[in-house]
Amino acid sequence: MKRAAPTETGQVGRSVPRLESWLKVTGRAEYVHNLRLPGMLYGKIFRSTVSHGRIKRIDVSAAQAVAGVYRVVTSKEIRQLVPEPYYGPAFHDQPILAIDKVRYVGEPVAVVLASDPHVAEEAAHLITAEYEPLPAVYDEVEAMTSKAIVHDELRPAGTFPDLKHLKGKKNTNVALDFHLRRGDAAKALESAHKVFEHRFHTQQVMHTPLEPLVSVAECTEDSLTLHTASQSPSFVRIEIARLLGWPENRVRVRVPFLGGGFGAKLYIKLEALVAVLSLLARRPVKVSLTMEEQFFTITKHATTFRIKSGVDGGGRIVARECEVWWNGGAYADIGPRVTQKSGFTAPGPYDIAHVAVDSYALYTNLPPAGALRGFGIPQLVWAYESHTDMMARELGLDPLEFRRKNLLLDGATHATGTVLRDAATGKVLERLAALMDWQKPFERGTAGLRRGRGIAIGLKACVAPTTSLAAVSVNVDGAVTVYCGTVDMGQGSDTAMAQIAAQVLGVAAESVKVVHSDTDVTPYDMATLGSRSLFHMGNAVKLAAEDARDKVAAVKKEAGFPADASLKDVFKKKYGMQAGSVLGQASFVPTYTSPDANGLTDNATPFWMVGASGVELEVDTETGQVRITRLVNVADVGTPINPRIVETQLAGAAIMQLGFTLSEKMEFDAEGQLRNASLAEYKIPGFHDLPASMVNEAVDAEQRSGPFGAKGVGETATFGVSPAIANAIHDAVGVRIMSLPLTPEIIFMKMQEKP
Amino acid sequence: MKRAAPTETGQVGRSVPRLESWLKVTGRAEYVHNLRLPGMLYGKIFRSTVSHGRIKRIDVSAAQAVAGVYRVVTSKEIRQLVPEPYYGPAFHDQPILAIDKVRYVGEPVAVVLASDPHVAEEAAHLITAEYEPLPAVYDEVEAMTSKAIVHDELRPAGTFPDLKHLKGKKNTNVALDFHLRRGDAAKALESAHKVFEHRFHTQQVMHTPLEPLVSVAECTEDSLTLHTASQSPSFVRIEIARLLGWPENRVRVRVPFLGGGFGAKLYIKLEALVAVLSLLARRPVKVSLTMEEQFFTITKHATTFRIKSGVDGGGRIVARECEVWWNGGAYADIGPRVTQKSGFTAPGPYDIAHVAVDSYALYTNLPPAGALRGFGIPQLVWAYESHTDMMARELGLDPLEFRRKNLLLDGATHATGTVLRDAATGKVLERLAALMDWQKPFERGTAGLRRGRGIAIGLKACVAPTTSLAAVSVNVDGAVTVYCGTVDMGQGSDTAMAQIAAQVLGVAAESVKVVHSDTDVTPYDMATLGSRSLFHMGNAVKLAAEDARDKVAAVKKEAGFPADASLKDVFKKKYGMQAGSVLGQASFVPTYTSPDANGLTDNATPFWMVGASGVELEVDTETGQVRITRLVNVADVGTPINPRIVETQLAGAAIMQLGFTLSEKMEFDAEGQLRNASLAEYKIPGFHDLPASMVNEAVDAEQRSGPFGAKGVGETATFGVSPAIANAIHDAVGVRIMSLPLTPEIIFMKMQEKP
Repeated sequence: MKRAAPTETGQVGRSVPRLESWLKVTGRAEYVHNLRLPGMLYGKIFRSTVSHGRIKRIDVSAAQAVAGVYRVVTSKEIRQLVPEPYYGPAFHDQPILAIDKVRYVGEPVAVVLASDPHVAEEAAHLITAEYEPLPAVYDEVEAMTSKAIVHDELRPAGTFPDLKHLKGKKNTNVALDFHLRRGDAAKALESAHKVFEHRFHTQQVMHTPLEPLVSVAECTEDSLTLHTASQSPSFVRIEIARLLGWPENRVRVRVPFLGGGFGAKLYIKLEALVAVLSLLARRPVKVSLTMEEQFFTITKHATTFRIKSGVDGGGRIVARECEVWWNGGAYADIGPRVTQKSGFTAPGPYDIAHVAVDSYALYTNLPPAGALRGFGIPQLVWAYESHTDMMARELGLDPLEFRRKNLLLDGATHATGTVLRDAATGKVLERLAALMDWQKPFERGTAGLRRGRGIAIGLKACVAPTTSLAAVSVNVDGAVTVYCGTVDMGQGSDTAMAQIAAQVLGVAAESVKVVHSDTDVTPYDMATLGSRSLFHMGNAVKLAAEDARDKVAAVKKEAGFPADASLKDVFKKKYGMQAGSVLGQASFVPTYTSPDANGLTDNATPFWMVGASGVELEVDTETGQVRITRLVNVADVGTPINPRIVETQLAGAAIMQLGFTLSEKMEFDAEGQLRNASLAEYKIPGFHDLPASMVNEAVDAEQRSGPFGAKGVGETATFGVSPAIANAIHDAVGVRIMSLPLTPEIIFMKMQEKP
Repeated sequence: MKRAAPTETGQVGRSVPRLESWLKVTGRAEYVHNLRLPGMLYGKIFRSTVSHGRIKRIDVSAAQAVAGVYRVVTSKEIRQLVPEPYYGPAFHDQPILAIDKVRYVGEPVAVVLASDPHVAEEAAHLITAEYEPLPAVYDEVEAMTSKAIVHDELRPAGTFPDLKHLKGKKNTNVALDFHLRRGDAAKALESAHKVFEHRFHTQQVMHTPLEPLVSVAECTEDSLTLHTASQSPSFVRIEIARLLGWPENRVRVRVPFLGGGFGAKLYIKLEALVAVLSLLARRPVKVSLTMEEQFFTITKHATTFRIKSGVDGGGRIVARECEVWWNGGAYADIGPRVTQKSGFTAPGPYDIAHVAVDSYALYTNLPPAGALRGFGIPQLVWAYESHTDMMARELGLDPLEFRRKNLLLDGATHATGTVLRDAATGKVLERLAALMDWQKPFERGTAGLRRGRGIAIGLKACVAPTTSLAAVSVNVDGAVTVYCGTVDMGQGSDTAMAQIAAQVLGVAAESVKVVHSDTDVTPYDMATLGSRSLFHMGNAVKLAAEDARDKVAAVKKEAGFPADASLKDVFKKKYGMQAGSVLGQASFVPTYTSPDANGLTDNATPFWMVGASGVELEVDTETGQVRITRLVNVADVGTPINPRIVETQLAGAAIMQLGFTLSEKMEFDAEGQLRNASLAEYKIPGFHDLPASMVNEAVDAEQRSGPFGAKGVGETATFGVSPAIANAIHDAVGVRIMSLPLTPEIIFMKMQEKP
């Protein structure tokens, strides 16, 4: 046994090494990519080469003739099994394989099945298709008014009440319009001392989980097991059952470890496809994407954000208008939720009396966009914190001072009408200032290598309403097992859940076993997303552990045993033998109030995430090259359950956002063809791109409604990175870039434009 | 979906087709034999060729030299990992591989591991061993006093209080002596009108599950998963954890379908072996026995039963002495439990004022004996019901009349002191008489083909104390899932549990999913044995379903919903969304009082099983060949949950016992060598051996403490078959055979002996 011995210290607040680390370094951790089943077929996808077109003909004969090909499947065969094969969490808009039309380059059109994946791939190359071109739209703002309509008719899934009014709507690309009105922004802007208006843009990027998407289905006549790299097994079960018209208990979804998710592996991705392929072929079917294919599967929303603020004579922001357009690509995925959930925090962490927000989810002829670490917030913070800096400079105020003056502090009322609670905005900003030595003079570098610094702060609400269920069992030997549906995709959730259960039950966290997500095994959990798990599932695990503890205590009390009586005695009393288990269970649903027609609610979120970043950098004035010399990330994560994991989560999020800020961009040509669908041309951060120095710190805080004072941390350090860098570049070389990414070319060109 | 639509009729009491039948007929049901894991090694066992000897030398060099052999393992390597590798449910007496000594022919001594099972088998043939012979004992009565001692010292496992006094005892082969004293049997026999004394014998036989024993282990540093054909996954987990010194939550035991069990697959069989092999090899390891090897693994107790009864002038039995010797073979397995649990019903279902029972579990140098469908009862009924018939004939009474006169009726007090409740002895006997047309004249046949008939009735208590835990979940779409550790080994438990949950929750049984036994998934269950599951687990499933139902009702009540409000509304209220699950859970522990020093208790069993059989047969007087023309089995199973399954369980049990009665026998030579370890020479019943006509019937009865009035049925039709046949043979040709099996040779020879 390699496990550490129980310690005398508490289980929570201790940097327990990750429970799965040994499995991972010895190559024994289970991943779906390694799964092979007897008789399994591999599916390879043939994809659309046009961005919008009516399918005239698909010719699979050459592929079908390849020796070793089992079958070629198009939507025609699928519809024999599932007449309406459309899926999606917000809209039932996405076909399993293209039906009648294709809506983006890379959309799956047909699949070749073969026992040998190379045969399948070879054959897929032999499929041809003919399309009648349709007018296409790519830009999110143009999509508002374009004659090019991506979907003839809107088909809300029925799960979100605020989408219901869109049902059956035609001739529109708007998949959701969210509006927030507080006070009278227009009037307040008119009477403001000074008004600033800017327009920002973010690019389409990809999640790049190093484990590409992969799913395996095996079926019988009336039951189906999916082994899938998914962040949302419960959703997959429900959605597959709906598609097939089966009860939920005939669908089983198993999820082992994930090699990263970041939002890419949510809802249905390959699961519906492998499910129907397996039912058609009556054999197990595996589809595993290449890294390149991920670009055509799910991405992050490109956005345009028009922001207009009015400031009074004292430098206080009095009014703000926000207009945000979210480029959702050809299928809505969870985009409408991003539009709404992020929409209401678009005004930022500032105390502004008059606010108007309009946020639009748009269909375009690009690959679909969905959730990506931050769920829209990084796009918003990018804009409002660039805007904040621009205002401060124009007003002749120090950027920190300007933020201090306007910051929405704990206890104040947010634009939605919700009073901010347990959101340490002030502490986070002050700690960032201290770590940045903001009051000290800053060395500006040389003419060839200019130095600058910048800061930014952001706020995020947690997705609501959602539910987590958990169970915790205690064996007669004291061994504890946690059953929870949270997917450990590298964030360390197994370890954190073990710590929470261990703290309640008085055992070492290292001794706790966490059973992985399996819809036949682990109770319902909404999904692993949006930094919700530690708070929601953490609370559920804590309650379930307490339930188990209380059940043991009740037996002791009833039997008149002392409180420290052994479990053996308890079991002997309860079950008549020294065996068995005590099962605690619980569900956790935070309180939440849906926004009204004006986007207002007094209870907008289970908890707030607050994150700020500060950057020091050098710009090579001859090349525009940026080198980050220091990156400081400060966050309110409540009270950390595992301080070391909190640190690595902050670091990971910031580095990921660094790539989205400096280099990553999906580049499309005028026909909607992606030109850089490969990691050779799409540059994610490598070791040499990391900041020379990096600090990741959680402020001393407590989320009183969280398990042991904790809350989510996975996204918080994504918030401030992009604007802090843009602000620092401006600080260094005086150029302001309003579009991501901040590449050397753009910086260099902007420097040339300067008068 | 092939499932039947919900019916209007009740779910309980309906002959729902087995849920797994489709999987089985399409070859898709999961069995461990079909499991292959990447990198898996196959183990082939080298076995002892002597029945008792000290191991002088094991030469594995030739085996180790075979190309493709990964490793050869003996107890030496095992002890480096597990210093005390002895296991067993009653005694820790059985080594994983032989240590120092071998105690029966066929005992595992070494294992060859290879990627190819044929290579492993070939290499195993090249192992040689040298033994210093030790005196051996084979007969159970001789073992009482023999100088040949099988175990130097007794090592009770510590789980059964009545074995504790044996700890450390030396120079004995008695692994348990059970005694019951009620009244004064010796005195009553002295004053009896007439006294009868007989001595009966049963032979050693095998379970012959058509799926031979098989286990697969896969391990990491500190966790182990066993995929095993086991009836007792919870026991396997606990025992493997104990052997390895690990907490229970590091050991996972998964059990898919079983191709029969009958008691052979209880406790530890191959599991400890594959576990340590996997840990030594650091690779998955599979050991699957051939049908032949099963003879050397677990068997049914041979017995000797001396029975002595005193009858008064009115034909009432007034006193009975029973002395039973159980031949447990070289390792105790669960033999001591058989000795005790069956011991106390040795006097039979008769109302006898003075009773003395002595029952002994003996070690001998034969393959170990354990539980086999009936748990000792068929051996006892064989004796006491042959004895009953012999007395009746001697007294000139009709065998039915004599039984009626002495039968222990519901409400009377059993020999243990327990009042018989819900044991329909009278109904069972009368229904058997009616179905046999006993009062009608019976056609006696011709000189060449003599006809005879016979009846017998038996009683069995259920194993106690034991516990079952279950969970039942309800999804938002009404889909119900049952989590229970009962192993479906062909008895139809999945279907019965589904019916119970369905009845409580008002859904169709066909729609219920039953999750198979997996110690990481399903709650603790003692084991699937002794006809306990329908009663114990059935009650637990019923309570868990009621818990789920009550939780749903509580939400409705709290929300002020009408009783028929939809689950969607309930979930929306409870979880804030139309998803999730409601989990009900329960444990069931029947009341039970341990017997005192005299074997007396007022609460001997959770329920009684009552079974009677009647036989009509022909004996060919020229050959001794017996042909069963009619077999009638009548049972009290309470109120059947699934009448059709009850019928097939009765039929299956009776046919199995038919084999043990007419043909099956493990034949040993004077050195303890088994001479017929193959189905070519060991004859189990085939289709041509089945009775020409067969009736299987449950009487109208109710087990009030059972789920919906039901109780176990798996063993009941084994009770009366053997003595009914022996009694019918006597009726036909006037010969009385006191030893099983009743082969044509023996019948023919006995007929020649007749004066």
